[in-house]
Amino acid sequence: MRHVICGKCVKCGAEYEAVPTLTTCACGGVLDIQYDYARIRERVSPASLAACRDYSMWRYKAFLPVEDPPAPTPLRVGWSPLYRADRLAGELGLRRLYIKDDGQNPTASLKDRASALAVVKAREAGAKAIACSSTGNAASSLAGSAAAAGLRAYIFVPSRAPRGKIAQLRIFGAEVVSVEGSYEETFALSRDAIAHWGWYNRNAAVNPYLSEGKKTVALELMEQLNWQTPDYVALSVGDGCTIAGVWKGFRDLYAAGFISCLPRLISVQAEGCCPLNRALQTGEAWSPMPENTLADSIAVGVPRNPDKAMAAVRESRGLAVNVADEEILEAMRLLGRTQGVFGEPAGAAGTAGVQKALKLGLLDPEATVVSIVTGNGLKDAANGIRAAGEPMTCPPNMDALLSLFSGSFS
Amino acid sequence: MRHVICGKCVKCGAEYEAVPTLTTCACGGVLDIQYDYARIRERVSPASLAACRDYSMWRYKAFLPVEDPPAPTPLRVGWSPLYRADRLAGELGLRRLYIKDDGQNPTASLKDRASALAVVKAREAGAKAIACSSTGNAASSLAGSAAAAGLRAYIFVPSRAPRGKIAQLRIFGAEVVSVEGSYEETFALSRDAIAHWGWYNRNAAVNPYLSEGKKTVALELMEQLNWQTPDYVALSVGDGCTIAGVWKGFRDLYAAGFISCLPRLISVQAEGCCPLNRALQTGEAWSPMPENTLADSIAVGVPRNPDKAMAAVRESRGLAVNVADEEILEAMRLLGRTQGVFGEPAGAAGTAGVQKALKLGLLDPEATVVSIVTGNGLKDAANGIRAAGEPMTCPPNMDALLSLFSGSFS
Repeated sequence: MRHVICGKCVKCGAEYEAVPTLTTCACGGVLDIQYDYARIRERVSPASLAACRDYSMWRYKAFLPVEDPPAPTPLRVGWSPLYRADRLAGELGLRRLYIKDDGQNPTASLKDRASALAVVKAREAGAKAIACSSTGNAASSLAGSAAAAGLRAYIFVPSRAPRGKIAQLRIFGAEVVSVEGSYEETFALSRDAIAHWGWYNRNAAVNPYLSEGKKTVALELMEQLNWQTPDYVALSVGDGCTIAGVWKGFRDLYAAGFISCLPRLISVQAEGCCPLNRALQTGEAWSPMPENTLADSIAVGVPRNPDKAMAAVRESRGLAVNVADEEILEAMRLLGRTQGVFGEPAGAAGTAGVQKALKLGLLDPEATVVSIVTGNGLKDAANGIRAAGEPMTCPPNMDALLSLFSGSFS
Repeated sequence: MRHVICGKCVKCGAEYEAVPTLTTCACGGVLDIQYDYARIRERVSPASLAACRDYSMWRYKAFLPVEDPPAPTPLRVGWSPLYRADRLAGELGLRRLYIKDDGQNPTASLKDRASALAVVKAREAGAKAIACSSTGNAASSLAGSAAAAGLRAYIFVPSRAPRGKIAQLRIFGAEVVSVEGSYEETFALSRDAIAHWGWYNRNAAVNPYLSEGKKTVALELMEQLNWQTPDYVALSVGDGCTIAGVWKGFRDLYAAGFISCLPRLISVQAEGCCPLNRALQTGEAWSPMPENTLADSIAVGVPRNPDKAMAAVRESRGLAVNVADEEILEAMRLLGRTQGVFGEPAGAAGTAGVQKALKLGLLDPEATVVSIVTGNGLKDAANGIRAAGEPMTCPPNMDALLSLFSGSFS
């Protein structure tokens, strides 16, 4: 990994050798992987990518903290579709909108990008077992990637996690502990258990490699846009690791000379749980909040990566937008009806934030925006039906159907 | 479409011009699209495909009954991953096994391939609305593709359809009629409604273009195998359209000179609903059966495409294997635990059939087999949890966890 310099603390600046088992700084700060961009440029260019036939996140291995070639990863992660969403843009009153549907990953969320990298690093570390706590998607992605790689997985989720995510965890053969408490309590229990049993740690923010996996969503969407930077990139925020990873991806591309300007980020949180956005809006330090939203993936009262996340939004001169649960359900319907994309609540929240920012006059309607759908609505069918309603029921005969449809159309 | 000759009845041989609104023969027989393979060979070759950057089903447009270039389709369908499943093969006692995970399509099933083609043909026909009946996956795929294309969709599903599929249908904005009856009754009601309102018909077997979309899964897996034909291809069978489409794909490749031999098909049905396999096994004509299996997608008591499906299995010198619901649940666990692939019950049934065929001595353990996972387990979380069980629950403290895990590991 000659292109990797070190892991550097975002709080105190201390530097650590980038060993596979890297966690946090002695001061408690989160580490950020530092690169030698001259070496990256020697290995990759827009032209070399145009000729690359590996349509997965590993096409960007020159930007990733892995040995070259990386240990093969069994699931095909990344290169999710970027859709130009003209019909949705029209309904929102926005000039140009793209939807990056990251629910099209193997376990149906963006978190597969982080878990794939974590499994590579766990193998480099010689680990036999890997563990994390999660609101659900990091958990199911880790369980899937670990199963495919033949690693044991120990997973801690709050008992509120939706059924689709629970089904994934169990089918992938993970040891799953459903914790009768909040995500905060779930995280604390996993931390103690990892310390006790010595599993490889895939916890958000603790393991600095995860953001590096997540950043591939930014590299991808820029390649899909032919390296033309959009004005804004919108996504939902829980722990803060994903938005930090997205920003890292853009900064990497800028530092390596692939793009000539940076986008502004739109950080979207739920009104009922927005500790980071509240801090961004007030300028005060962040403080915990209750986890009061139906968007389970971003119901994070004590975010684990506040420093990187808030720095990302500030450096990008970004927006912080909070959305009500009803606005999230509305965005789920809009994405589905106009684009055929089904996002889970947190997955559609980014689009809800775009709509809200337009309504509030924070976002120029002439802007070009990319909204990242971070997870698939199939993970949470109950909220899908809550958003869109139950179907009509009908006995199996034409008279009943005619009566049901009477007046609907001629 | 100079490469398309006609639609030819599989029963009486009558030929019809391949107009977009083609349905069944006047004799009631299902039509099969006939090609001029010399013209296909002029347009595509293994070498031209190797240079093609369109990683979707439309890379095979030279093999498809569409205008060149086809109307653009908004969702990215096809090019699902083919995984070499060494760990699963080891557990089954099979020399080589590949898993084609078609649950990685936009609405999470193989049916997206048929719906994408149906939407293209509906546009060619100038239709504003498109309709189908379905056990669930054809329905949700049509709803998604129609939404993305700006077409209205009218969908008829039996009320037993699992919640994930219902959620998709409603989110995609389709008019959904949940029919209080069997799939047979649902199909009949949709047929009458389509006749009454004149919607474009995407019903299985009635519309001969659907199988042509489905055949792309065979074209893809052969390209992914570098045109080396496996010994067997296993998949689950309901209406019979998918296995007919898969066989058509292989025959097309053989006729066009891309492959030098054909695989044998393994037709897998549920013990509680196996009208086609029963006919194949007994040599008698098929007759209806009750729809008695948890694999909702293949709970088809009156299959709509029996002639094409049974001809496919017979022509390929294939196997007909029935599996119990318990064997399907076991295959779901196996796919998840060993490969990180989560199939819905009908999606895992193909793999259950491979396991069963090995147990019965019908399948040579030295064979190379491809098993197609036709739909994602997230569509049916309830059966995922039924297969793999509920997670452990634990209060949020380490003492409780130590007690829960006591004896599990040192």
